[in-house]
Amino acid sequence: MDSSNSLIGELKLQVRKLEKSDKSKGFIELLQQLTVCDSISEKEFEERFQEINSYGNDHVVCVIEDDQSGKIIATGSVFIERKFIRNCGKVGHIEDVVVDSTARERQLGKKIIGFLTDHAHSMGCYKVILDCSIENKAFYEKCGFKQKEIQMVKYFS
Amino acid sequence: MDSSNSLIGELKLQVRKLEKSDKSKGFIELLQQLTVCDSISEKEFEERFQEINSYGNDHVVCVIEDDQSGKIIATGSVFIERKFIRNCGKVGHIEDVVVDSTARERQLGKKIIGFLTDHAHSMGCYKVILDCSIENKAFYEKCGFKQKEIQMVKYFS
Repeated sequence: MDSSNSLIGELKLQVRKLEKSDKSKGFIELLQQLTVCDSISEKEFEERFQEINSYGNDHVVCVIEDDQSGKIIATGSVFIERKFIRNCGKVGHIEDVVVDSTARERQLGKKIIGFLTDHAHSMGCYKVILDCSIENKAFYEKCGFKQKEIQMVKYFS
Repeated sequence: MDSSNSLIGELKLQVRKLEKSDKSKGFIELLQQLTVCDSISEKEFEERFQEINSYGNDHVVCVIEDDQSGKIIATGSVFIERKFIRNCGKVGHIEDVVVDSTARERQLGKKIIGFLTDHAHSMGCYKVILDCSIENKAFYEKCGFKQKEIQMVKYFS
Protein backbone atom coordinates (compact mmCIF):
# COMPACT_ATOMS: atom_id res chain seq x y z
CA MET A 1 0.00 0.00 0.00
CA ASP A 2 1.58 3.35 -0.99
CA SER A 3 1.25 6.46 1.13
CA SER A 4 -1.79 7.87 -0.70
CA ASN A 5 -3.74 4.63 -0.25
CA SER A 6 -2.64 4.60 3.37
CA LEU A 7 -4.02 8.12 3.78
CA ILE A 8 -7.36 7.13 2.26
CA GLY A 9 -7.44 4.19 4.66
CA GLU A 10 -6.96 6.51 7.63
CA LEU A 11 -9.64 8.91 6.39
CA LYS A 12 -12.12 6.05 6.18
CA LEU A 13 -11.63 5.27 9.89
CA GLN A 14 -14.76 6.98 11.17
CA VAL A 15 -15.94 7.02 14.76
CA ARG A 16 -19.43 5.56 15.13
CA LYS A 17 -21.71 4.36 17.92
CA LEU A 18 -21.31 0.82 19.24
CA GLU A 19 -23.52 -1.77 17.51
CA LYS A 20 -24.63 -5.16 18.83
CA SER A 21 -22.64 -6.96 16.15
CA ASP A 22 -19.39 -5.38 17.42
CA LYS A 23 -19.06 -8.14 20.02
CA SER A 24 -18.07 -10.50 17.20
CA LYS A 25 -15.64 -7.90 15.85
CA GLY A 26 -13.30 -8.00 18.82
CA PHE A 27 -14.89 -5.30 20.99
CA ILE A 28 -14.51 -7.32 24.21
CA GLU A 29 -10.94 -8.38 23.32
CA LEU A 30 -10.12 -4.69 22.85
CA LEU A 31 -11.49 -3.86 26.32
CA GLN A 32 -9.30 -6.63 27.73
CA GLN A 33 -6.29 -4.47 26.82
CA LEU A 34 -7.64 -1.93 29.33
CA THR A 35 -8.58 -4.09 32.30
CA VAL A 36 -10.23 -7.31 33.45
CA CYS A 37 -13.05 -8.34 31.15
CA ASP A 38 -12.81 -12.07 30.73
CA SER A 39 -16.20 -13.70 30.60
CA ILE A 40 -19.13 -11.96 28.97
CA SER A 41 -21.77 -14.19 27.42
CA GLU A 42 -23.81 -13.12 24.38
CA LYS A 43 -26.81 -12.66 26.69
CA GLU A 44 -24.92 -10.52 29.21
CA PHE A 45 -23.52 -8.38 26.41
CA GLU A 46 -26.93 -7.82 24.84
CA GLU A 47 -28.53 -6.97 28.20
CA ARG A 48 -25.84 -4.43 29.02
CA PHE A 49 -26.01 -3.05 25.46
CA GLN A 50 -29.77 -2.51 25.88
CA GLU A 51 -29.38 -0.96 29.33
CA ILE A 52 -26.84 1.57 28.07
CA ASN A 53 -28.87 2.18 24.90
CA SER A 54 -31.96 2.95 26.99
CA TYR A 55 -30.19 6.11 28.19
CA GLY A 56 -30.11 7.38 24.60
CA ASN A 57 -27.77 10.34 24.17
CA ASP A 58 -27.09 10.36 27.94
CA HIS A 59 -24.72 7.38 27.59
CA VAL A 60 -22.86 6.78 24.35
CA VAL A 61 -20.22 4.12 23.62
CA CYS A 62 -18.31 4.78 20.40
CA VAL A 63 -15.91 2.66 18.37
CA ILE A 64 -13.60 2.78 15.35
CA GLU A 65 -13.75 -0.23 13.07
CA ASP A 66 -10.80 -1.09 10.85
CA ASP A 67 -12.34 -1.49 7.38
CA GLN A 68 -9.55 -3.77 6.26
CA SER A 69 -9.58 -6.25 9.15
CA GLY A 70 -13.19 -5.76 10.20
CA LYS A 71 -11.97 -5.44 13.79
CA ILE A 72 -12.86 -2.81 16.40
CA ILE A 73 -9.56 -1.03 17.07
CA ALA A 74 -10.57 1.85 19.35
CA THR A 75 -13.37 2.68 21.77
CA GLY A 76 -14.47 5.08 24.48
CA SER A 77 -17.65 6.14 26.26
CA VAL A 78 -19.27 9.24 27.69
CA PHE A 79 -22.27 9.71 29.91
CA ILE A 80 -24.05 12.91 30.72
CA GLU A 81 -24.63 13.73 34.38
CA ARG A 82 -27.43 16.15 35.25
CA LYS A 83 -26.65 18.42 38.19
CA PHE A 84 -28.27 21.14 40.26
CA ILE A 85 -25.03 23.14 40.54
CA ARG A 86 -23.97 25.49 37.75
CA ASN A 87 -27.63 26.46 37.37
CA CYS A 88 -28.80 22.94 36.62
CA GLY A 89 -25.73 22.25 34.49
CA LYS A 90 -24.62 19.03 32.83
CA VAL A 91 -21.21 17.34 32.89
CA GLY A 92 -19.85 14.77 30.46
CA HIS A 93 -17.87 11.88 31.99
CA ILE A 94 -15.47 10.11 29.61
CA GLU A 95 -14.65 6.50 30.51
CA ASP A 96 -12.97 3.37 29.17
CA VAL A 97 -10.89 4.81 26.33
CA VAL A 98 -8.63 2.24 24.67
CA VAL A 99 -6.81 1.94 21.33
CA ASP A 100 -5.65 -1.44 20.05
CA SER A 101 -1.97 -1.97 20.81
CA THR A 102 -1.29 -2.71 17.12
CA ALA A 103 -2.98 0.50 15.97
CA ARG A 104 -1.12 3.13 18.00
CA GLU A 105 0.32 6.38 16.56
CA ARG A 106 -2.57 6.74 14.12
CA GLN A 107 -4.36 9.43 16.15
CA LEU A 108 -7.24 7.06 16.90
CA GLY A 109 -7.29 8.04 20.58
CA LYS A 110 -7.55 11.67 19.58
CA LYS A 111 -10.46 10.83 17.25
CA ILE A 112 -12.29 8.99 20.03
CA ILE A 113 -11.77 11.83 22.52
CA GLY A 114 -12.85 14.38 19.89
CA PHE A 115 -16.06 12.44 19.22
CA LEU A 116 -16.92 12.06 22.92
CA THR A 117 -16.03 15.69 23.73
CA ASP A 118 -18.14 16.97 20.82
CA HIS A 119 -21.04 14.82 22.01
CA ALA A 120 -20.83 16.25 25.54
CA HIS A 121 -20.67 19.77 24.11
CA SER A 122 -23.68 19.15 21.85
CA MET A 123 -25.62 17.87 24.88
CA GLY A 124 -25.13 21.24 26.59
CA CYS A 125 -22.46 20.22 29.11
CA TYR A 126 -20.42 23.03 30.65
CA LYS A 127 -17.41 20.71 30.96
CA VAL A 128 -16.21 17.21 30.22
CA ILE A 129 -14.02 15.29 32.67
CA LEU A 130 -12.07 12.05 32.86
CA ASP A 131 -9.64 10.26 35.17
CA CYS A 132 -6.32 8.96 33.87
CA SER A 133 -2.90 7.82 35.01
CA ILE A 134 -0.01 10.28 35.21
CA GLU A 135 1.47 8.47 32.17
CA ASN A 136 -1.50 9.47 30.00
CA LYS A 137 -1.63 13.09 31.15
CA ALA A 138 0.40 14.41 28.17
CA PHE A 139 -1.95 12.71 25.69
CA TYR A 140 -5.02 14.36 27.22
CA GLU A 141 -3.27 17.72 27.32
CA LYS A 142 -2.81 17.40 23.55
CA CYS A 143 -6.59 16.85 23.41
CA GLY A 144 -7.17 20.18 25.19
CA PHE A 145 -7.62 18.89 28.76
CA LYS A 146 -5.98 20.24 31.91
CA GLN A 147 -5.25 18.51 35.19
CA LYS A 148 -7.55 19.66 37.96
CA GLU A 149 -8.27 17.40 40.92
CA ILE A 150 -7.30 13.95 42.15
CA GLN A 151 -9.32 10.76 41.90
CA MET A 152 -10.16 8.80 45.04
CA VAL A 153 -11.44 5.24 44.92
CA LYS A 154 -12.95 2.65 47.25
CA TYR A 155 -13.13 -0.96 46.03
CA PHE A 156 -15.85 -3.37 47.15
CA SER A 157 -14.32 -6.45 45.54
CA MET B 1 -29.23 21.96 75.71
CA ASP B 2 -27.14 19.55 77.78
CA SER B 3 -24.82 17.01 76.21
CA SER B 4 -27.33 14.14 76.23
CA ASN B 5 -29.91 16.27 74.38
CA SER B 6 -27.18 17.29 71.98
CA LEU B 7 -26.38 13.64 71.35
CA ILE B 8 -30.03 12.86 70.65
CA GLY B 9 -30.07 15.80 68.24
CA GLU B 10 -27.11 14.35 66.34
CA LEU B 11 -28.64 10.88 66.23
CA LYS B 12 -31.80 12.33 64.70
CA LEU B 13 -29.80 13.73 61.78
CA GLN B 14 -30.63 11.03 59.27
CA VAL B 15 -29.55 10.97 55.65
CA ARG B 16 -32.52 10.79 53.28
CA LYS B 17 -33.20 11.24 49.58
CA LEU B 18 -33.77 14.74 48.21
CA GLU B 19 -37.42 15.85 48.12
CA LYS B 20 -38.99 18.55 45.99
CA SER B 21 -39.77 20.66 49.03
CA ASP B 22 -36.05 20.84 49.91
CA LYS B 23 -35.63 23.79 47.54
CA SER B 24 -37.45 25.95 50.10
CA LYS B 25 -35.26 24.52 52.88
CA GLY B 26 -32.02 26.04 51.63
CA PHE B 27 -30.85 23.22 49.32
CA ILE B 28 -29.73 25.61 46.57
CA GLU B 29 -28.09 27.99 49.07
CA LEU B 30 -26.13 25.01 50.40
CA LEU B 31 -24.91 24.14 46.88
CA GLN B 32 -23.79 27.74 46.49
CA GLN B 33 -21.16 27.03 49.15
CA LEU B 34 -19.68 24.51 46.68
CA THR B 35 -19.74 26.42 43.40
CA VAL B 36 -21.71 28.71 41.13
CA CYS B 37 -25.44 28.09 41.42
CA ASP B 38 -27.11 31.46 41.39
CA SER B 39 -30.37 31.41 39.49
CA ILE B 40 -32.60 28.37 39.51
CA SER B 41 -36.31 28.99 39.10
CA GLU B 42 -38.93 26.75 40.69
CA LYS B 43 -39.66 25.33 37.23
CA GLU B 44 -36.02 24.58 36.42
CA PHE B 45 -35.56 22.91 39.80
CA GLU B 46 -38.63 20.72 39.37
CA GLU B 47 -37.63 19.71 35.83
CA ARG B 48 -34.12 18.73 36.93
CA PHE B 49 -35.56 16.96 40.00
CA GLN B 50 -37.82 14.89 37.71
CA GLU B 51 -35.02 14.14 35.25
CA ILE B 52 -32.76 12.84 38.01
CA ASN B 53 -35.66 10.98 39.65
CA SER B 54 -36.44 9.22 36.36
CA TYR B 55 -33.13 7.35 36.74
CA GLY B 56 -34.43 5.76 39.96
CA ASN B 57 -31.66 4.10 41.95
CA ASP B 58 -29.16 4.88 39.18
CA HIS B 59 -28.94 8.53 40.32
CA VAL B 60 -29.56 9.45 43.93
CA VAL B 61 -29.21 12.85 45.58
CA CYS B 62 -29.24 12.68 49.39
CA VAL B 63 -29.52 15.34 52.08
CA ILE B 64 -29.39 15.85 55.83
CA GLU B 65 -32.04 18.15 57.26
CA ASP B 66 -31.46 19.90 60.57
CA ASP B 67 -34.59 19.13 62.58
CA GLN B 68 -34.17 22.23 64.70
CA SER B 69 -33.72 24.81 61.95
CA GLY B 70 -35.56 22.94 59.20
CA LYS B 71 -32.63 23.66 56.90
CA ILE B 72 -30.74 21.28 54.60
CA ILE B 73 -27.21 21.23 56.04
CA ALA B 74 -25.47 18.53 53.98
CA THR B 75 -25.85 16.90 50.58
CA GLY B 76 -24.15 14.65 48.05
CA SER B 77 -25.05 12.56 45.01
CA VAL B 78 -24.10 9.28 43.38
CA PHE B 79 -24.89 7.85 39.98
CA ILE B 80 -24.36 4.32 38.80
CA GLU B 81 -22.47 3.83 35.54
CA ARG B 82 -22.99 0.56 33.65
CA LYS B 83 -19.87 -0.71 31.92
CA PHE B 84 -18.76 -3.55 29.69
CA ILE B 85 -15.39 -3.89 31.44
CA ARG B 86 -15.06 -5.88 34.64
CA ASN B 87 -17.50 -8.40 33.17
CA CYS B 88 -20.30 -5.88 32.68
CA GLY B 89 -19.49 -4.21 36.00
CA LYS B 90 -20.98 -1.08 37.55
CA VAL B 91 -19.22 1.92 39.10
CA GLY B 92 -20.64 4.49 41.51
CA HIS B 93 -19.65 8.11 40.89
CA ILE B 94 -19.95 10.41 43.91
CA GLU B 95 -20.46 14.10 43.10
CA ASP B 96 -21.31 17.44 44.70
CA VAL B 97 -20.69 16.69 48.37
CA VAL B 98 -21.07 19.74 50.62
CA VAL B 99 -21.65 20.36 54.33
CA ASP B 100 -22.97 23.71 55.57
CA SER B 101 -20.12 25.88 56.82
CA THR B 102 -21.91 26.36 60.14
CA ALA B 103 -22.34 22.59 60.65
CA ARG B 104 -18.77 21.34 60.30
CA GLU B 105 -17.07 18.87 62.69
CA ARG B 106 -20.31 16.98 63.26
CA GLN B 107 -19.36 14.06 60.99
CA LEU B 108 -22.07 15.01 58.50
CA GLY B 109 -19.73 14.62 55.53
CA LYS B 110 -18.87 11.14 56.71
CA LYS B 111 -22.57 10.31 57.02
CA ILE B 112 -23.24 11.52 53.48
CA ILE B 113 -20.29 9.56 52.04
CA GLY B 114 -21.36 6.47 54.00
CA PHE B 115 -24.89 6.70 52.61
CA LEU B 116 -23.71 7.15 49.01
CA THR B 117 -21.05 4.42 49.29
CA ASP B 118 -23.57 1.97 50.78
CA HIS B 119 -25.98 2.78 47.95
CA ALA B 120 -23.32 2.07 45.30
CA HIS B 121 -22.43 -1.19 47.07
CA SER B 122 -26.08 -2.26 47.27
CA MET B 123 -26.44 -1.57 43.54
CA GLY B 124 -23.70 -4.10 42.82
CA CYS B 125 -20.88 -1.69 41.98
CA TYR B 126 -17.34 -3.10 42.16
CA LYS B 127 -16.02 0.32 43.19
CA VAL B 128 -17.07 3.87 43.97
CA ILE B 129 -15.01 6.86 42.82
CA LEU B 130 -14.92 10.62 43.26
CA ASP B 131 -12.72 13.57 42.39
CA CYS B 132 -11.55 15.99 45.05
CA SER B 133 -8.96 18.66 45.76
CA ILE B 134 -5.67 17.79 47.46
CA GLU B 135 -7.01 19.62 50.55
CA ASN B 136 -9.88 17.14 50.92
CA LYS B 137 -7.77 14.02 50.38
CA ALA B 138 -7.32 13.34 54.13
CA PHE B 139 -11.09 13.49 54.72
CA TYR B 140 -11.79 10.88 52.03
CA GLU B 141 -8.99 8.68 53.32
CA LYS B 142 -10.79 8.67 56.68
CA CYS B 143 -13.86 7.47 54.74
CA GLY B 144 -11.88 4.50 53.37
CA PHE B 145 -10.87 5.92 49.98
CA LYS B 146 -7.43 5.86 48.40
CA GLN B 147 -5.91 8.16 45.81
CA LYS B 148 -5.59 6.49 42.42
CA GLU B 149 -5.53 8.60 39.26
CA ILE B 150 -5.68 12.26 38.29
CA GLN B 151 -8.67 14.18 37.00
CA MET B 152 -8.45 15.98 33.66
CA VAL B 153 -11.02 18.57 32.59
CA LYS B 154 -11.99 20.54 29.51
CA TYR B 155 -14.37 23.49 29.95
CA PHE B 156 -16.80 24.60 27.24
CA SER B 157 -17.90 27.79 28.96
